[in-house]
Amino acid sequence: MPTHYWEDFKTGDVAVYGPRLVTREEIVAFAAEFDPQPMHMDEAAAAATLLGGLAASGWHSCALMMRMMADGFILDAASMGAPGVEEVRWQKPLRPGTQVKLRATVLDTRASKSRPEMGLTRIRYDLIDEADETITTMTSTMMLGRRAPGTAA
Amino acid sequence: MPTHYWEDFKTGDVAVYGPRLVTREEIVAFAAEFDPQPMHMDEAAAAATLLGGLAASGWHSCALMMRMMADGFILDAASMGAPGVEEVRWQKPLRPGTQVKLRATVLDTRASKSRPEMGLTRIRYDLIDEADETITTMTSTMMLGRRAPGTAA
Repeated sequence: MPTHYWEDFKTGDVAVYGPRLVTREEIVAFAAEFDPQPMHMDEAAAAATLLGGLAASGWHSCALMMRMMADGFILDAASMGAPGVEEVRWQKPLRPGTQVKLRATVLDTRASKSRPEMGLTRIRYDLIDEADETITTMTSTMMLGRRAPGTAA
Repeated sequence: MPTHYWEDFKTGDVAVYGPRLVTREEIVAFAAEFDPQPMHMDEAAAAATLLGGLAASGWHSCALMMRMMADGFILDAASMGAPGVEEVRWQKPLRPGTQVKLRATVLDTRASKSRPEMGLTRIRYDLIDEADETITTMTSTMMLGRRAPGTAA
Protein backbone atom coordinates (compact mmCIF):
# COMPACT_ATOMS: atom_id res chain seq x y z
CA MET A 1 0.00 0.00 0.00
CA PRO A 2 1.34 3.45 -0.85
CA THR A 3 2.26 5.70 2.03
CA HIS A 4 2.46 8.98 0.05
CA TYR A 5 -0.60 10.44 -1.62
CA TRP A 6 -1.19 13.71 -3.42
CA GLU A 7 -2.33 15.36 -0.19
CA ASP A 8 1.08 14.69 1.37
CA PHE A 9 2.94 17.06 -0.96
CA LYS A 10 2.76 20.76 -0.08
CA THR A 11 4.09 23.72 -2.02
CA GLY A 12 7.55 24.58 -0.70
CA ASP A 13 8.32 21.11 0.65
CA VAL A 14 11.96 20.16 0.12
CA ALA A 15 13.44 16.69 0.39
CA VAL A 16 16.95 15.43 -0.37
CA TYR A 17 17.65 11.88 -1.55
CA GLY A 18 20.86 9.92 -1.91
CA PRO A 19 23.82 10.12 -1.81
CA ARG A 20 24.89 7.99 -4.73
CA LEU A 21 28.41 7.60 -6.07
CA VAL A 22 28.61 7.82 -9.86
CA THR A 23 31.41 5.66 -11.23
CA ARG A 24 33.41 5.92 -14.46
CA GLU A 25 32.31 2.38 -15.28
CA GLU A 26 28.61 3.22 -15.27
CA ILE A 27 29.17 6.49 -17.17
CA VAL A 28 30.94 4.65 -20.00
CA ALA A 29 28.42 1.76 -19.96
CA PHE A 30 25.45 4.11 -20.32
CA ALA A 31 27.19 6.05 -23.07
CA ALA A 32 28.10 2.88 -24.97
CA GLU A 33 24.44 1.88 -24.99
CA PHE A 34 22.66 5.20 -25.49
CA ASP A 35 24.99 8.12 -26.22
CA PRO A 36 28.28 6.96 -27.72
CA GLN A 37 29.78 10.40 -28.24
CA PRO A 38 33.53 10.50 -27.50
CA MET A 39 33.06 13.06 -24.69
CA HIS A 40 31.12 10.41 -22.70
CA MET A 41 33.37 7.46 -23.58
CA ASP A 42 37.02 8.43 -23.59
CA GLU A 43 39.12 10.78 -21.43
CA ALA A 44 41.49 11.95 -24.17
CA ALA A 45 38.71 12.68 -26.65
CA ALA A 46 36.65 14.36 -23.94
CA ALA A 47 39.51 16.68 -22.93
CA ALA A 48 39.27 18.43 -26.31
CA THR A 49 35.51 19.13 -25.98
CA LEU A 50 33.48 21.83 -24.24
CA LEU A 51 33.08 19.40 -21.32
CA GLY A 52 36.85 19.58 -20.75
CA GLY A 53 37.05 15.94 -19.69
CA LEU A 54 35.02 12.76 -19.40
CA ALA A 55 31.48 13.40 -18.19
CA ALA A 56 28.22 11.48 -18.17
CA SER A 57 25.66 11.80 -20.93
CA GLY A 58 23.00 14.30 -19.92
CA TRP A 59 20.46 11.52 -20.38
CA HIS A 60 22.41 9.40 -17.91
CA SER A 61 22.09 12.14 -15.31
CA CYS A 62 18.32 12.19 -15.98
CA ALA A 63 18.09 8.41 -15.62
CA LEU A 64 20.03 8.55 -12.34
CA MET A 65 17.66 11.26 -11.10
CA MET A 66 14.73 9.01 -11.97
CA ARG A 67 16.25 6.17 -9.98
CA MET A 68 16.88 8.44 -6.99
CA MET A 69 13.28 9.70 -7.15
CA ALA A 70 11.99 6.14 -7.38
CA ASP A 71 13.99 4.95 -4.38
CA GLY A 72 13.43 8.23 -2.55
CA PHE A 73 9.64 8.36 -2.67
CA ILE A 74 7.91 7.27 -5.85
CA LEU A 75 7.96 3.54 -5.12
CA ASP A 76 6.13 4.31 -1.84
CA ALA A 77 3.76 6.81 -3.43
CA ALA A 78 0.43 6.45 -5.19
CA SER A 79 2.22 7.41 -8.40
CA MET A 80 0.22 7.41 -11.61
CA GLY A 81 3.14 8.51 -13.77
CA ALA A 82 4.02 11.77 -15.45
CA PRO A 83 2.99 13.30 -18.78
CA GLY A 84 6.48 14.59 -19.45
CA VAL A 85 9.10 17.07 -18.36
CA GLU A 86 8.96 20.84 -18.67
CA GLU A 87 12.62 21.57 -18.96
CA VAL A 88 15.95 19.89 -18.44
CA ARG A 89 19.13 21.94 -18.02
CA TRP A 90 22.54 20.29 -18.05
CA GLN A 91 24.37 22.93 -16.05
CA LYS A 92 27.60 21.29 -14.97
CA PRO A 93 29.41 18.16 -16.18
CA LEU A 94 28.78 15.02 -14.13
CA ARG A 95 32.27 13.61 -13.56
CA PRO A 96 33.30 10.09 -12.59
CA GLY A 97 33.60 9.76 -8.82
CA THR A 98 31.07 12.44 -8.00
CA GLN A 99 28.80 11.73 -5.06
CA VAL A 100 25.42 13.12 -6.03
CA LYS A 101 22.24 13.91 -4.14
CA LEU A 102 18.82 14.76 -5.50
CA ARG A 103 16.93 17.73 -4.10
CA ALA A 104 13.19 17.80 -4.78
CA THR A 105 11.24 21.04 -4.28
CA VAL A 106 7.46 21.08 -4.59
CA LEU A 107 6.55 24.08 -6.79
CA ASP A 108 2.78 23.70 -6.76
CA THR A 109 0.02 21.21 -6.30
CA ARG A 110 -3.55 21.03 -7.59
CA ALA A 111 -6.43 18.59 -7.86
CA SER A 112 -7.19 17.17 -11.31
CA LYS A 113 -10.32 18.69 -12.80
CA SER A 114 -11.10 15.64 -14.94
CA ARG A 115 -10.11 12.83 -12.56
CA PRO A 116 -11.45 13.08 -9.01
CA GLU A 117 -9.11 10.30 -7.86
CA MET A 118 -6.00 12.17 -9.02
CA GLY A 119 -3.95 15.19 -8.07
CA LEU A 120 -1.05 16.91 -9.82
CA THR A 121 2.19 17.86 -8.13
CA ARG A 122 4.78 19.98 -9.92
CA ILE A 123 8.29 19.36 -8.64
CA ARG A 124 11.70 20.80 -9.46
CA TYR A 125 14.54 18.33 -9.17
CA ASP A 126 18.16 19.38 -8.77
CA LEU A 127 20.96 16.85 -9.05
CA ILE A 128 23.66 18.33 -6.82
CA ASP A 129 27.28 17.50 -6.13
CA GLU A 130 29.34 17.53 -2.90
CA ALA A 131 29.72 21.34 -3.18
CA ASP A 132 25.93 21.69 -3.45
CA GLU A 133 26.31 22.88 -7.05
CA THR A 134 23.64 21.89 -9.52
CA ILE A 135 24.65 19.41 -12.22
CA THR A 136 21.23 18.92 -13.80
CA THR A 137 17.90 20.53 -13.05
CA MET A 138 14.48 19.53 -14.34
CA THR A 139 10.87 20.30 -13.61
CA SER A 140 8.13 17.72 -13.97
CA THR A 141 4.49 17.29 -13.02
CA MET A 142 3.60 14.04 -11.31
CA MET A 143 0.17 12.45 -11.29
CA LEU A 144 -0.65 11.10 -7.84
CA GLY A 145 -3.56 9.23 -6.35
CA ARG A 146 -5.58 11.13 -3.74
CA ARG A 147 -6.18 9.83 -0.26
CA ALA A 148 -9.66 11.39 -0.38
CA PRO A 149 -10.84 11.28 -4.00
CA GLY A 150 -13.25 13.91 -5.15
CA THR A 151 -13.08 16.35 -2.27
CA ALA A 152 -12.47 19.98 -3.14
CA ALA A 153 -8.83 20.86 -3.70
CA MET B 1 36.38 14.50 -39.66
CA PRO B 2 32.78 15.61 -39.22
CA THR B 3 30.63 15.78 -42.33
CA HIS B 4 27.79 17.84 -40.85
CA TYR B 5 28.35 21.38 -39.64
CA TRP B 6 25.96 24.06 -38.38
CA GLU B 7 25.58 25.44 -41.91
CA ASP B 8 24.17 22.12 -43.12
CA PHE B 9 20.99 22.38 -41.01
CA LYS B 10 18.24 24.57 -42.45
CA THR B 11 14.92 25.54 -40.87
CA GLY B 12 12.26 23.11 -42.04
CA ASP B 13 14.65 20.25 -42.82
CA VAL B 14 13.17 16.88 -41.87
CA ALA B 15 15.05 13.61 -41.51
CA VAL B 16 13.88 10.20 -40.31
CA TYR B 17 16.21 7.72 -38.58
CA GLY B 18 15.81 4.04 -37.69
CA PRO B 19 13.85 1.81 -37.61
CA ARG B 20 14.69 0.13 -34.33
CA LEU B 21 12.77 -2.69 -32.69
CA VAL B 22 12.19 -2.15 -28.96
CA THR B 23 12.15 -5.44 -27.08
CA ARG B 24 10.49 -6.42 -23.80
CA GLU B 25 13.90 -7.51 -22.54
CA GLU B 26 15.46 -4.06 -22.95
CA ILE B 27 12.38 -2.30 -21.52
CA VAL B 28 12.58 -4.37 -18.34
CA ALA B 29 16.39 -4.10 -18.13
CA PHE B 30 16.30 -0.29 -18.34
CA ALA B 31 13.49 -0.12 -15.80
CA ALA B 32 15.31 -2.42 -13.38
CA GLU B 33 18.31 -0.11 -13.46
CA PHE B 34 16.72 3.33 -13.60
CA ASP B 35 12.94 3.32 -13.15
CA PRO B 36 11.76 0.23 -11.27
CA GLN B 37 8.09 1.15 -11.15
CA PRO B 38 5.79 -1.87 -11.61
CA MET B 39 4.27 -0.43 -14.79
CA HIS B 40 7.67 -0.73 -16.50
CA MET B 41 8.58 -4.13 -15.02
CA ASP B 42 5.63 -6.46 -14.89
CA GLU B 43 2.66 -7.04 -17.22
CA ALA B 44 0.10 -7.83 -14.53
CA ALA B 45 1.00 -4.83 -12.38
CA ALA B 46 1.11 -2.61 -15.46
CA ALA B 47 -2.37 -3.65 -16.59
CA ALA B 48 -3.85 -1.94 -13.53
CA THR B 49 -2.13 1.40 -14.21
CA LEU B 50 -2.92 4.35 -16.49
CA LEU B 51 -0.54 2.80 -19.05
CA GLY B 52 -2.90 -0.18 -19.35
CA GLY B 53 -0.06 -2.63 -19.86
CA LEU B 54 3.71 -2.92 -19.81
CA ALA B 55 5.43 0.09 -21.37
CA ALA B 56 8.92 1.54 -21.35
CA SER B 57 10.02 4.17 -18.87
CA GLY B 58 9.69 7.60 -20.43
CA TRP B 59 13.39 8.05 -19.74
CA HIS B 60 14.10 4.90 -21.72
CA SER B 61 12.31 6.38 -24.72
CA CYS B 62 14.49 9.50 -24.35
CA ALA B 63 17.66 7.40 -24.15
CA LEU B 64 16.62 5.47 -27.27
CA MET B 65 15.98 8.76 -29.06
CA MET B 66 19.48 9.89 -28.09
CA ARG B 67 20.96 6.70 -29.52
CA MET B 68 19.00 7.08 -32.77
CA MET B 69 20.15 10.73 -33.06
CA ALA B 70 23.75 9.69 -32.41
CA ASP B 71 23.72 6.95 -35.04
CA GLY B 72 21.59 9.07 -37.36
CA PHE B 73 23.74 12.17 -37.56
CA ILE B 74 25.42 13.37 -34.38
CA LEU B 75 28.41 11.03 -34.56
CA ASP B 76 29.14 12.45 -38.04
CA ALA B 77 28.45 16.04 -37.01
CA ALA B 78 30.62 18.72 -35.48
CA SER B 79 28.54 18.34 -32.31
CA MET B 80 29.51 20.41 -29.28
CA GLY B 81 26.73 19.06 -27.09
CA ALA B 82 23.47 20.53 -25.85
CA PRO B 83 22.64 22.75 -22.88
CA GLY B 84 19.47 20.82 -22.15
CA VAL B 85 15.99 20.05 -23.39
CA GLU B 86 13.07 22.43 -23.65
CA GLU B 87 10.24 20.01 -23.23
CA VAL B 88 9.62 16.28 -23.23
CA ARG B 89 6.10 14.90 -23.71
CA TRP B 90 5.35 11.23 -23.20
CA GLN B 91 2.30 11.04 -25.41
CA LYS B 92 1.74 7.35 -26.01
CA PRO B 93 3.04 4.23 -24.20
CA LEU B 94 6.06 2.59 -25.82
CA ARG B 95 5.11 -1.11 -25.90
CA PRO B 96 7.38 -4.13 -26.27
CA GLY B 97 7.72 -5.14 -29.92
CA THR B 98 7.20 -1.65 -31.32
CA GLN B 99 9.35 -0.71 -34.28
CA VAL B 100 10.20 2.94 -33.77
CA LYS B 101 11.63 5.65 -35.98
CA LEU B 102 12.92 9.07 -35.03
CA ARG B 103 11.80 12.11 -36.97
CA ALA B 104 13.95 15.24 -36.59
CA THR B 105 12.59 18.62 -37.72
CA VAL B 106 14.82 21.70 -37.69
CA LEU B 107 12.83 24.50 -36.03
CA ASP B 108 15.40 27.27 -36.27
CA THR B 109 19.07 27.93 -36.56
CA ARG B 110 21.27 30.83 -35.53
CA ALA B 111 24.92 31.72 -35.11
CA SER B 112 26.24 31.99 -31.58
CA LYS B 113 26.82 35.60 -30.53
CA SER B 114 29.55 34.73 -28.06
CA ARG B 115 31.37 31.96 -29.91
CA PRO B 116 32.25 32.63 -33.56
CA GLU B 117 33.13 28.96 -34.09
CA MET B 118 29.67 27.76 -33.01
CA GLY B 119 26.10 27.78 -34.24
CA LEU B 120 22.87 26.76 -32.54
CA THR B 121 20.28 24.50 -34.12
CA ARG B 122 16.92 23.96 -32.47
CA ILE B 123 15.38 20.61 -33.39
CA ARG B 124 12.12 18.89 -32.53
CA TYR B 125 12.39 15.12 -32.25
CA ASP B 126 9.41 12.80 -32.53
CA LEU B 127 9.70 9.13 -31.67
CA ILE B 128 7.06 7.52 -33.88
CA ASP B 129 5.59 4.04 -34.18
CA GLU B 130 4.57 1.94 -37.21
CA ALA B 131 1.30 3.91 -37.47
CA ASP B 132 3.26 7.19 -37.54
CA GLU B 133 1.82 8.12 -34.13
CA THR B 134 4.05 10.03 -31.74
CA ILE B 135 5.22 8.17 -28.65
CA THR B 136 7.55 10.83 -27.27
CA THR B 137 8.33 14.32 -28.48
CA MET B 138 11.09 16.62 -27.33
CA THR B 139 12.72 19.86 -28.43
CA SER B 140 16.38 20.56 -27.90
CA THR B 141 18.99 23.05 -29.04
CA MET B 142 22.22 21.58 -30.30
CA MET B 143 25.57 23.37 -30.35
CA LEU B 144 27.39 22.73 -33.61
CA GLY B 145 30.74 23.71 -35.03
CA ARG B 146 30.63 26.05 -38.03
CA ARG B 147 32.29 25.26 -41.31
CA ALA B 148 33.13 28.94 -41.69
CA PRO B 149 33.66 30.37 -38.20
CA GLY B 150 32.95 33.99 -37.62
CA THR B 151 31.13 34.86 -40.83
CA ALA B 152 27.82 36.63 -40.47
CA ALA B 153 24.86 34.37 -39.74
